[in-house]
Amino acid sequence: MRIRLVAFTLAGAFALYSQQAAPNAATGRGPGRAPTAPPPIRWDSPPLPDGPIVLDTAIQHQIRLTVTKGLVHPFSMAFLPDGAILVTERPGRLRIIRNGVLDPTPVAGLPEIRARGLGGLMDLALDPNFAQNKLIYFTYDKPAATGNTAVRTLARARWDGTALVDERDLFSAIPSGNASRIIFGRDGMIYMTIGIGDNEAMKAQDLSELAGKVLRLKDDGTVPPDNPFVNRAGARPEIFTYGHRNGLGLALEPGTGRLWECEDGPNGGDEVNILEAGKNYGWPVVSNGRYYLGPRVSIGDYKEGMEPPVVYWVPAIAVSGLTFYTGDKFPKWKNSLFVGGMRQGEVPRSGQLERIDFNGKWEELHRESMFHELQNRIRDVRQGPDGLLYVLTEEANGALIKIEPWTEPGR
Amino acid sequence: MRIRLVAFTLAGAFALYSQQAAPNAATGRGPGRAPTAPPPIRWDSPPLPDGPIVLDTAIQHQIRLTVTKGLVHPFSMAFLPDGAILVTERPGRLRIIRNGVLDPTPVAGLPEIRARGLGGLMDLALDPNFAQNKLIYFTYDKPAATGNTAVRTLARARWDGTALVDERDLFSAIPSGNASRIIFGRDGMIYMTIGIGDNEAMKAQDLSELAGKVLRLKDDGTVPPDNPFVNRAGARPEIFTYGHRNGLGLALEPGTGRLWECEDGPNGGDEVNILEAGKNYGWPVVSNGRYYLGPRVSIGDYKEGMEPPVVYWVPAIAVSGLTFYTGDKFPKWKNSLFVGGMRQGEVPRSGQLERIDFNGKWEELHRESMFHELQNRIRDVRQGPDGLLYVLTEEANGALIKIEPWTEPGR
Repeated sequence: MRIRLVAFTLAGAFALYSQQAAPNAATGRGPGRAPTAPPPIRWDSPPLPDGPIVLDTAIQHQIRLTVTKGLVHPFSMAFLPDGAILVTERPGRLRIIRNGVLDPTPVAGLPEIRARGLGGLMDLALDPNFAQNKLIYFTYDKPAATGNTAVRTLARARWDGTALVDERDLFSAIPSGNASRIIFGRDGMIYMTIGIGDNEAMKAQDLSELAGKVLRLKDDGTVPPDNPFVNRAGARPEIFTYGHRNGLGLALEPGTGRLWECEDGPNGGDEVNILEAGKNYGWPVVSNGRYYLGPRVSIGDYKEGMEPPVVYWVPAIAVSGLTFYTGDKFPKWKNSLFVGGMRQGEVPRSGQLERIDFNGKWEELHRESMFHELQNRIRDVRQGPDGLLYVLTEEANGALIKIEPWTEPGR
Repeated sequence: MRIRLVAFTLAGAFALYSQQAAPNAATGRGPGRAPTAPPPIRWDSPPLPDGPIVLDTAIQHQIRLTVTKGLVHPFSMAFLPDGAILVTERPGRLRIIRNGVLDPTPVAGLPEIRARGLGGLMDLALDPNFAQNKLIYFTYDKPAATGNTAVRTLARARWDGTALVDERDLFSAIPSGNASRIIFGRDGMIYMTIGIGDNEAMKAQDLSELAGKVLRLKDDGTVPPDNPFVNRAGARPEIFTYGHRNGLGLALEPGTGRLWECEDGPNGGDEVNILEAGKNYGWPVVSNGRYYLGPRVSIGDYKEGMEPPVVYWVPAIAVSGLTFYTGDKFPKWKNSLFVGGMRQGEVPRSGQLERIDFNGKWEELHRESMFHELQNRIRDVRQGPDGLLYVLTEEANGALIKIEPWTEPGR
């Protein structure tokens, strides 16, 4: 008998990339080995089925997934008051889904976007006062005036009911190969992540640089006067926290509204942090990760004056997207933290949705790792105004997945 | 449509334990919460199919598994020169498998064994000179003379072709709730792990205690004169290394013969260590784990004078069994390290076989996590004299699984 990792697809799902033998101790020794990172081990993500999918979970029993296909590398979503869902596609389109149906025509009104590498059109967020002012904020890579580069930019536009209008840039940061998430804090400020490449990682510790930071900005893109480094000479006043690698999720703690962040480590060392003004989260001085050639980033994972993560992963799952569940539709998931996982390859749990629950001190108790059956990379997870959870898959044939509680008929 | 985690079983596999809602931040607060560890989230392991199982892997392409069922909590195995495989069952039986067929009659000649908790009959190892002397070594829990307890004991017996004879105890350590692995080093010495419970964890740092140590003994159970602490007053001379939690795997590094060990952390913090005489591996002073109630074992994972692990897992996979692949049957797996995983529950990758490859400095490059499809806990992994890999499942309906390379007909 024959077992497939994924039950619903028996053909084509496991077309492996042509792959050299992985480096090992035997072949890795000797002068002939070039000092480059080993190739990642990958396989393709299988297409999702069209119909609803029922999955078992650890404590919520069953859930049912409804899939809306046709999205190209979707990155983020926002729920409009009329029930429609806006979805950004990283290549530079804004899409709208109404009643589970994707409008084939992209939403008009975006600026010119340069989508290369991991950038393009990224996060979006509704103004806390959206019902009145109809403002939508988003992050994108704006083509630079000269050269084949782009500048990571925070912008906003007004939603006129069918399109974005009056788009204007609020803040231009730096060229950045990584993604930028944004969220409104309880204080009405915009928090924005700026990633950093490993070749210039030490800039994450340099307060004169924006790379490797979380920024705090007013809703017009200017600097709030109570930012932690506004009075420090040589420091960028936009900085809220520093020592980050690649922040790919932001969420507000239920009750307190404290800001949580998740960021990708290198080979190991993905983290969830609780952000506090002016603090240093350690990258690249301390980390649980390894560089891709094998050496550890640091001997230990802690240093005085640097904040340890609340949760971390070794090996990495490539975290992206972060949300606390606060609704009533999944009572056993109340206050669980959900994190998307985009890791594929050597760990054939290709893509996952991770649920973490905590004790009363926000110390981790359990992790539940879901959606392995789908073998799709999870880019974002959000709670809808209906109390359900919504997930985006980071795929060229990407999808929005609605998660509902489910009881098998007759059970 | 409906997806099951395991394709081959559509009924019964997911009978969930009756489970209270997991503690969370909301319910965890307030005076009413008893200070006990949260209940683990579990589901039953499905029975394995009878026929061969074909699986996809990342770089070895396909493998075929042949299953020999009927073993009760098998713990360890040894390959006899005639091709038969001896398997210990933790409840206290020694079994023999010839040509893939389990002899229904247990092997005679074992001493009386007390099997409670995680103990019973555990590891076994052939004498390096077995071809001549037919000696077999094993670890078991010997009923104590008084009281309802047992003493962790190293014993040996002679194999007369069908049974053990002339069994005698070589070394009696201490009562121990955890398992004991043994291996012969290149130096002809026996290395034996002694675990420790979390309620007395600090004994792992106390050289006057055997708990939380790896011991080094001569093949008659006495202390070699070159052990690291033989001349230290107050120290147990049997100790080779200390600061261990629960050593559940031992293996020799290809080429050098250096001793590698894997041990279970608590909630997170499973480790693989390279053992060197007299060194301290840190438990419970430093760890990547958390206690089951949530608090971290330590703020950082490193302290001067304590050895960091070579590989670690967060979350834990409950490592057990350790072997380097050095054969020719799986060329792409040469020098990979294989580790069994017994973790079930909140991470529904219930049970796994983990493959780790390294660069030329034994720095980790990739991990490949296999066997999730089986949802069986993996207790041990060994390379047979035929160059194939063999795995034992830690189940009441346990099995020996032979792993062969496989090419799908017509591919």
